[in-house]
Amino acid sequence: MKNYFSSDFKLGILGGGQLGRMLLAETQKLDIYTAILDSNKNAPCAQICNEFHQGDLLDFDAVYNFGKTVDLLTIEIENVNLDALDKLEDEGLTIFPKPKDLRIIQSKARQKNFYVDHQIPTAAFSHYAYLEELKHAVENDIVEFPFVWKAARFGYDGNGVKIVRNIEDLESLPLVECITEKLIPFKNELAVIVARNADGEVKTYPVVEMEFHPEANQVEYVICPARIDSQVAENARELALKIVSDLDFVGLLAVEMFQTVDDRILVNEVAPRPHNSGHYSIEASYTNQFEQHLRSILNLPLGNTNSKVAGIMVNLVGDEGFSGEVIYENIEEILKIDGVTPHIYGKKETRPFRKMGHVTIVNENIDDARKIAQQVKETIRVISK
Amino acid sequence: MKNYFSSDFKLGILGGGQLGRMLLAETQKLDIYTAILDSNKNAPCAQICNEFHQGDLLDFDAVYNFGKTVDLLTIEIENVNLDALDKLEDEGLTIFPKPKDLRIIQSKARQKNFYVDHQIPTAAFSHYAYLEELKHAVENDIVEFPFVWKAARFGYDGNGVKIVRNIEDLESLPLVECITEKLIPFKNELAVIVARNADGEVKTYPVVEMEFHPEANQVEYVICPARIDSQVAENARELALKIVSDLDFVGLLAVEMFQTVDDRILVNEVAPRPHNSGHYSIEASYTNQFEQHLRSILNLPLGNTNSKVAGIMVNLVGDEGFSGEVIYENIEEILKIDGVTPHIYGKKETRPFRKMGHVTIVNENIDDARKIAQQVKETIRVISK
Repeated sequence: MKNYFSSDFKLGILGGGQLGRMLLAETQKLDIYTAILDSNKNAPCAQICNEFHQGDLLDFDAVYNFGKTVDLLTIEIENVNLDALDKLEDEGLTIFPKPKDLRIIQSKARQKNFYVDHQIPTAAFSHYAYLEELKHAVENDIVEFPFVWKAARFGYDGNGVKIVRNIEDLESLPLVECITEKLIPFKNELAVIVARNADGEVKTYPVVEMEFHPEANQVEYVICPARIDSQVAENARELALKIVSDLDFVGLLAVEMFQTVDDRILVNEVAPRPHNSGHYSIEASYTNQFEQHLRSILNLPLGNTNSKVAGIMVNLVGDEGFSGEVIYENIEEILKIDGVTPHIYGKKETRPFRKMGHVTIVNENIDDARKIAQQVKETIRVISK
Repeated sequence: MKNYFSSDFKLGILGGGQLGRMLLAETQKLDIYTAILDSNKNAPCAQICNEFHQGDLLDFDAVYNFGKTVDLLTIEIENVNLDALDKLEDEGLTIFPKPKDLRIIQSKARQKNFYVDHQIPTAAFSHYAYLEELKHAVENDIVEFPFVWKAARFGYDGNGVKIVRNIEDLESLPLVECITEKLIPFKNELAVIVARNADGEVKTYPVVEMEFHPEANQVEYVICPARIDSQVAENARELALKIVSDLDFVGLLAVEMFQTVDDRILVNEVAPRPHNSGHYSIEASYTNQFEQHLRSILNLPLGNTNSKVAGIMVNLVGDEGFSGEVIYENIEEILKIDGVTPHIYGKKETRPFRKMGHVTIVNENIDDARKIAQQVKETIRVISK
């Protein structure tokens, strides 16, 4: 094993946002030296990593030159220049997750094709290179309202996903490459995080359940464990494992799924990194997802994915109608409640629906946790001065 | 309440060692801006705090000038220049723990006098300004062998404490101010951490039990909860609360105690900050001691001090016979065991008995945790290249 701890080994991370920041908590715990590349000199990681490089993650030279300075490269965001990663890999750099998997995952169209090719159940879809192609398909009754529209690339936090119910909705879409999916009635949105190291050791976290904010299309509560039938949970874990195996994936893969009304599991999409749906693990799990990400990419033994207690995560997003220097109103009220831990991501400015932090609620009893989560949600407000 | 989160509030910390480093994990989680003063430009905190100032903690000007740049001042080590703190406090700076309490705690002689003045049970002691005074007392049969010798100041991790059994032991002691204590036969060494904020809200952590390494006089295992009678535990918590109350203390106070063979509780000494005996709390407690320290000094509501699971901490100290660039031999072996989390403090060079990190073992069953702790202890070795 390479000596990663208090050594001259240098871990490179592409991206310096909140996921990187939570990953740094773990590199600091294990004293692994980290260098970060991000275009924003005020990124959440900028002040607290060992080494910060400013540069565009989609720029070949920025990524390539950064990669040449590190011993192993990983990501905290998948929208990075893959040609640079391919060249770095050709030149011998270890990169996890693998560039070939990032290439599949970066594009929702390629992801969908991958699922179809590997008999992985997912909602039926069509792919359009431009919005005009989609309009043409609608005009010719090849696609019927309502349907789900997804930008093929650069979607995040619910951006890049719309339910299209009529011609007006269609007209408001951006002109970009996209896919459409049948609108499937589902009981639950679920997620499973899988970790796999280069030796092939693999572990799944418990299935979590997600409740979405009806307007913002952002996750409002992530509940671990999901309050679902154990057979459904088992099916979800097996499906997530199949994807990891079919991709020959190394790292952390978050698999988002739908549980249909007839209890089938369909894959929605995957993320090749620590994920919002795993933040509860910092307080609730024996090994949190960020430490597990490090263990998997460094080919260390994977940690126990079981939970000590039930966990619920509430996203802290900017309130509508507030922009500017952030204030976390009533944060002291939620700190009074047992088992409540706020995480503040270090963004100085709030905007409506901007993801500013999250709050984890842990409790021995999941129903008590759910009540407290609601109380937290109704108490704290992300506003501006 | 003041706005501490993602704001221009600046927390100053005197000391940038491993306790500071674990405290920074919490300031980062809450996005509280931190400035650190330490004499060592390679201190564990140097690279990961928002602002690092190099300077001697015992130097009036260094501490005073640093204090003038921050909004609230705290410590991660108690050996700091108190005259500077007094002047800063006079000039309006909020300092927790209070300088008056640090003055009592810095000196073991003053601590002992405080216990006597407040009818707090502690081992009988004598105080000597110089070693010569102690020798004189021995010659005149005022002190009898064996006894415990403690340097009045600057002891840490078992340094500054010796059991003196004969004239030869006496001759090898340093010339400094000291106290001596009767050697008391005890069943257990216990510790209780108490948090108190400026509003007077107070919470105690469960009583922990400490096992010491027989030669190095350093803690080998910290076990939470202590495997003792519940009435003894209750007495220990009450005694710790009395000390906090008598000091009118604000912050985190770690109280080390002896459980005598007849089940009395005697105070050994206190530390006015997060403490080695509370490291288990990072993985085991609802609110870890570092977050609790922040809550207490910022006058925020205190968090739940209960444990999710049993926790045991093993100190990682440099093996005898190794000095130089550190290697954590067999760390990958301990990572294979469920519920095992290493913390590496970021010191590049090991020395015999130097505190280099710790490992936490958490488990639903304390006896299983204890077995695993032994396995961890027998597996990992802190050696040099």
